[in-house]
Amino acid sequence: MKKLIIPKQIVTVNKLDAILKNHALLIEDDKISGILGKNEIELSAFEGEIYEYPELTLIPGFIQTHIHLCQTLFRGLADDLELLDWLQLKIFPYENAHNQASLKISAQLGINELQLGGTTTILDMGTIRHQEVIFEELINSGMRAFAGKCMVDKNGLMPQFKESTDESLNSSYELAKHYHNKTKKIKYGFAPRFVLSCSERLLRDTHDMLQEFNGSLYHTHSSENRSEIEEVRKMTGKENIEYFNQIGILGNSTVLAHCIHLNELEIGTLKSTGSRVSHCVSSNLKLGSGIANIPQYIQNGISVSLGADGAPCNNNLSIFHEMRLASLIQKPLHGPTSMDAKTTFRLSNIEGAKALNLENEIGSIEVGKQADLVLIDLERPSNPLNDSEEKIYSSIVYSSERIDVKHVMIGGQWVARNGKSLHYDENELLSLGKKELKSLLNRVD
Amino acid sequence: MKKLIIPKQIVTVNKLDAILKNHALLIEDDKISGILGKNEIELSAFEGEIYEYPELTLIPGFIQTHIHLCQTLFRGLADDLELLDWLQLKIFPYENAHNQASLKISAQLGINELQLGGTTTILDMGTIRHQEVIFEELINSGMRAFAGKCMVDKNGLMPQFKESTDESLNSSYELAKHYHNKTKKIKYGFAPRFVLSCSERLLRDTHDMLQEFNGSLYHTHSSENRSEIEEVRKMTGKENIEYFNQIGILGNSTVLAHCIHLNELEIGTLKSTGSRVSHCVSSNLKLGSGIANIPQYIQNGISVSLGADGAPCNNNLSIFHEMRLASLIQKPLHGPTSMDAKTTFRLSNIEGAKALNLENEIGSIEVGKQADLVLIDLERPSNPLNDSEEKIYSSIVYSSERIDVKHVMIGGQWVARNGKSLHYDENELLSLGKKELKSLLNRVD
Repeated sequence: MKKLIIPKQIVTVNKLDAILKNHALLIEDDKISGILGKNEIELSAFEGEIYEYPELTLIPGFIQTHIHLCQTLFRGLADDLELLDWLQLKIFPYENAHNQASLKISAQLGINELQLGGTTTILDMGTIRHQEVIFEELINSGMRAFAGKCMVDKNGLMPQFKESTDESLNSSYELAKHYHNKTKKIKYGFAPRFVLSCSERLLRDTHDMLQEFNGSLYHTHSSENRSEIEEVRKMTGKENIEYFNQIGILGNSTVLAHCIHLNELEIGTLKSTGSRVSHCVSSNLKLGSGIANIPQYIQNGISVSLGADGAPCNNNLSIFHEMRLASLIQKPLHGPTSMDAKTTFRLSNIEGAKALNLENEIGSIEVGKQADLVLIDLERPSNPLNDSEEKIYSSIVYSSERIDVKHVMIGGQWVARNGKSLHYDENELLSLGKKELKSLLNRVD
Repeated sequence: MKKLIIPKQIVTVNKLDAILKNHALLIEDDKISGILGKNEIELSAFEGEIYEYPELTLIPGFIQTHIHLCQTLFRGLADDLELLDWLQLKIFPYENAHNQASLKISAQLGINELQLGGTTTILDMGTIRHQEVIFEELINSGMRAFAGKCMVDKNGLMPQFKESTDESLNSSYELAKHYHNKTKKIKYGFAPRFVLSCSERLLRDTHDMLQEFNGSLYHTHSSENRSEIEEVRKMTGKENIEYFNQIGILGNSTVLAHCIHLNELEIGTLKSTGSRVSHCVSSNLKLGSGIANIPQYIQNGISVSLGADGAPCNNNLSIFHEMRLASLIQKPLHGPTSMDAKTTFRLSNIEGAKALNLENEIGSIEVGKQADLVLIDLERPSNPLNDSEEKIYSSIVYSSERIDVKHVMIGGQWVARNGKSLHYDENELLSLGKKELKSLLNRVD
């Protein structure tokens, strides 16, 4: 089945950063098969679905490289706390109390919010149990995703929230075998939580499994919080990145969330190993963790992409908050010209694709790539009124909100139309979410 | 005419910070005349309009204490620049090119965006010409506002953008005479721009005029940018606040926007004089200006309220961005427990009212106060699902966006219903805005 989208303009994010007016996008099955000048199209002869949006701008679907769907249910229940307290007092007990039903609605709430906000690909870290629930929900929802169960084989903060090393390795292996490439959109992302909750054997042996699952990723947290770093130093005698390097888990399939407090040696190591940084700016502020030196990482050629992290440390899953803040937060430190709108916009699409080694599949609007697309309304009084090229990036990064996202397509399939999910009924999500949260909180007490 | 609003709950911001469930708000004319328990109400016997919103939360209208309506048209046209460049290269030339038509649509765009986002009171700084246009628009729109023409009698950055001292003083005086208390909602806010664009006589003589206009304010910028501060030091031999103190313009009718870089002496002076700080966090980041030590000011008992500043340095006029960021930005500096959601929420209402000396009129939902009200939807899947009291503040500050504002009332009159303005047609604003911006940019070239 062919689809033809005729928007006001196409922000391609291709090698020329072209913004095309008077063009239409041809989609066949899951792929972009043509970008046509308007006079190349004979609408009356076109056999397929035609979508004319003379007021909407077509942009690549957003990519978020650090998400915890399992935490969506806990939004607002862990505010104004530091990372280790936040984990010990709130997040670990809540995750530990998840059953299949609560995990399912948590994933649904998160996917719904992400898709309505134009996010079409995520790298997700699950919790230690019931990971199959998240995979099934990702598949049902049409999301493009890397996901993996969270691996924890030691836990000083909450001893009962862990598995044995073998349990953790074996169950991850079985899940990867079952779900990696189960559909074209689903891949496995191995997810040891962080140094303090993983034995060295867990960290190493997990990395060895990558070889068997071509295209899978290694996804963990690093260098988020000064107390965490101090603990890692006590335990390993090293900084996070040097420790990771020593045990051989860095490389271009490794995505490290946060990387806030790095020394020069660590920055050099990230660069030389090709490891990826997922920058979670709202979360880093809200947990009081700090501000990563993103302009320096980018200048060093390190892969940087964006992630909203989990709902309880944000408290949104909106790429628009992340983009605006990723630009704004660097300006007092590195000057107001740093992290201009276009630079930050690219972190949300093509740089996200590169982080996931999917830059030939997604992240821009080019022939042959997957049709992961967002139609956004930049024609509102709250956007700039001048629609020159640079203003388009400014509109998206500095002025837009989730509500401006109108239609969202993943792999050629619409997942949201007119701001509404095609999969989820919001009222149902809301009432089920409340019910399951109440039960979960009862299980915690 | 009586109105009765029956919401899910009322966040009063009264002295007990009560959140009332099963209550209704009675409004007579422009005032709140009763807060009734549900069993005190006989709906069938009520003579007036009844508004039942079982899913919406009633909160006080938001108050923003530093806005430049005249700049709304320039959104996206001055990104990624430092303050003095931003003024010299962009904002002064644009303001200088305003005619009545461009200024009117700029004000309309700003007021529309503010009201739809739940802002019911502003302190606005205009430009040097056509201030009557802004006043007339404020009156027509039903906004509650302090406004004043911008006073500039010297200008090293753009010499043609100024008036003589006498012209500036006289025209401000005439405007104050005409517009101060012209309606119950409109007051004058004298607005000398900042030290570098004002002679000492202008600053002093303007302050003397406050006495003749009871309830008026003195509104200027201070200590925003390190280069500005250096220039002020060269010119006066002093820091901004000490200079202001020396010339006698501080006090509890003076609102100072920004106050980012203050020494201990200046903080003490703000405290002892009762001067007010308007914190414009997005603007301070976007212009690379810095981060004000708001927790310290609050701890010292200094009045702190919030403002979105102008559209080109934000690039929104949304109190939700300001609240979320005002909380988040302090946490890496002062710990994650600082600026909790409730503290920040209060800056957007009762603390704003105090800054404007209107705390007996607005800023909370209490009998006898003006009916400046917002009905907000906190019942969405992207908000916390637990509606305990602390989660209500978390929802508003950390999770909500402009779209969640459903109905807005100022002084007993609806200005927005179902997310739509009762005064403005967005499509008209958009097309007129584009037209006037194009003409203005032609005048600049």
